[in-house]
Amino acid sequence: MTEDTLTQRAVDRVQASFQRQGMMLHLGARLLRVVAGECELALPYSDKVTQQQGGFHGGAIGALADIAAGYAGLSLAPEGKEVTTVEYKINFLAAFQSGEIHAIGRVVRAGRRLIVTTAEVNHVAPDGKISACAVMQQTLAVVDKAY
Amino acid sequence: MTEDTLTQRAVDRVQASFQRQGMMLHLGARLLRVVAGECELALPYSDKVTQQQGGFHGGAIGALADIAAGYAGLSLAPEGKEVTTVEYKINFLAAFQSGEIHAIGRVVRAGRRLIVTTAEVNHVAPDGKISACAVMQQTLAVVDKAY
Amino acid sequence: MTEDTLTQRAVDRVQASFQRQGMMLHLGARLLRVVAGECELALPYSDKVTQQQGGFHGGAIGALADIAAGYAGLSLAPEGKEVTTVEYKINFLAAFQSGEIHAIGRVVRAGRRLIVTTAEVNHVAPDGKISACAVMQQTLAVVDKAY
Amino acid sequence: MTEDTLTQRAVDRVQASFQRQGMMLHLGARLLRVVAGECELALPYSDKVTQQQGGFHGGAIGALADIAAGYAGLSLAPEGKEVTTVEYKINFLAAFQSGEIHAIGRVVRAGRRLIVTTAEVNHVAPDGKISACAVMQQTLAVVDKAY
Repeated sequence: MTEDTLTQRAVDRVQASFQRQGMMLHLGARLLRVVAGECELALPYSDKVTQQQGGFHGGAIGALADIAAGYAGLSLAPEGKEVTTVEYKINFLAAFQSGEIHAIGRVVRAGRRLIVTTAEVNHVAPDGKISACAVMQQTLAVVDKAY
Repeated sequence: MTEDTLTQRAVDRVQASFQRQGMMLHLGARLLRVVAGECELALPYSDKVTQQQGGFHGGAIGALADIAAGYAGLSLAPEGKEVTTVEYKINFLAAFQSGEIHAIGRVVRAGRRLIVTTAEVNHVAPDGKISACAVMQQTLAVVDKAY
Repeated sequence: MTEDTLTQRAVDRVQASFQRQGMMLHLGARLLRVVAGECELALPYSDKVTQQQGGFHGGAIGALADIAAGYAGLSLAPEGKEVTTVEYKINFLAAFQSGEIHAIGRVVRAGRRLIVTTAEVNHVAPDGKISACAVMQQTLAVVDKAY
Repeated sequence: MTEDTLTQRAVDRVQASFQRQGMMLHLGARLLRVVAGECELALPYSDKVTQQQGGFHGGAIGALADIAAGYAGLSLAPEGKEVTTVEYKINFLAAFQSGEIHAIGRVVRAGRRLIVTTAEVNHVAPDGKISACAVMQQTLAVVDKAY
């Protein structure tokens, strides 16, 4: 396949899955960008995604990173397959209110059965300032598509 | 302090924090039980917490585990202190629809600066059947209370 | 199989593999105990296993935990299969010199393709005092036996 | 401080610590390169570092990654301080025999109390071919220097 075809195929698969993500849609997440092996999502600040101090909730940050990296993996999975998260590990680097968080997922190694990915999460302030928010390392399993 | 006093103090602190958790309240989470060093939360199934296959979202499972373990840690933190999540690692064991998930956080070791915890997440089906859903290992930092 | 048969089979498999562990034998590790789903190893203090402060090296602690949990998994793997470590995450709880460290690996969930385990590592002082040293959470892949 | 001074200071501190690493020296590890925020170590293949299939032992790979990233952190720690590993998480990407493994540790964020790092481990075959071997994500604590 050409690079354009690979990218279009990745976009189609990820968009089809993203529209089924009840929690992400509910929290207001948006799909920003997807190419083969890489995916970027955004989540705007709202009272749906806060913790006890009014900052972005670690659970929301973790969910966004999990999905961005999962979609990076999905973009490389064989036809008829999808991916499920085996596990992930996330470090939180700083707390943020307002603005948006952006998670960029990248494939480190795509095996036949397992895919290893990383994600970096950045905060984008209302004035455009970008700051590191979290880093994640994840294992995905390649499974038969179930829907 | 007596055990009763310790438990009451843990309950008070955790309840005060939980009422400030915008995301958790929004998703419908409930505080089930808290004693010194241990905390249990519940999250009912709804379209606010699903992923692309209609099961509980990993992000929701991770958030619930993160908070249950964080509150287990908070219950043991010194007066005037609270905890923030440094990092966690979660393994997903099985996918579930309907019913509730319950996360039980437990302190493994409470240091002066860092607290190590674990959480197990179980699925409770509508008929009461309990199944393992996820396990988590977490590091908390003890910080000055900010609110 | 009866429980005795299961235990004997677990012992045989783990012993056969342990004798091939160049690094572990070299560092002086011993196999203490294995039953189906659980395995315990010991590593005595020596200058082969120290870090810059003279305590047990995190790498030695991590290796012992990795193998104890891997053998817990191997004890439950189907005939003709073995396990390889996909990933692990370890928290170090305290530093120790002298004595031994003991790692106990336990299977949390044994799937057909993946096995999730935990390990706890304790320090056993020369006077017999036991202290928590580290906790680990691990993912194993079930693969065809290669030797 | 100038960049040269920073680099020299990083080199001095890391070399002083490395000479005290009993386990690493015993296994044959070498310090390849250190600048402020980054450190690279090598470990040659030998029967001291093998597992049951004759490949590099996960424990040896994990130890090398742990130390490379720890030294990346140490290179940025304030005077009179050193670092200890709070926890790490490592994914193994492929198994290798012969040649060497090289671990490159990098600081992601250096806080006053905690430092977050990553490490990538590559295999360098006898013919010079480089292949990805493992990726790690780590949390270090900044502590008073104890020696």
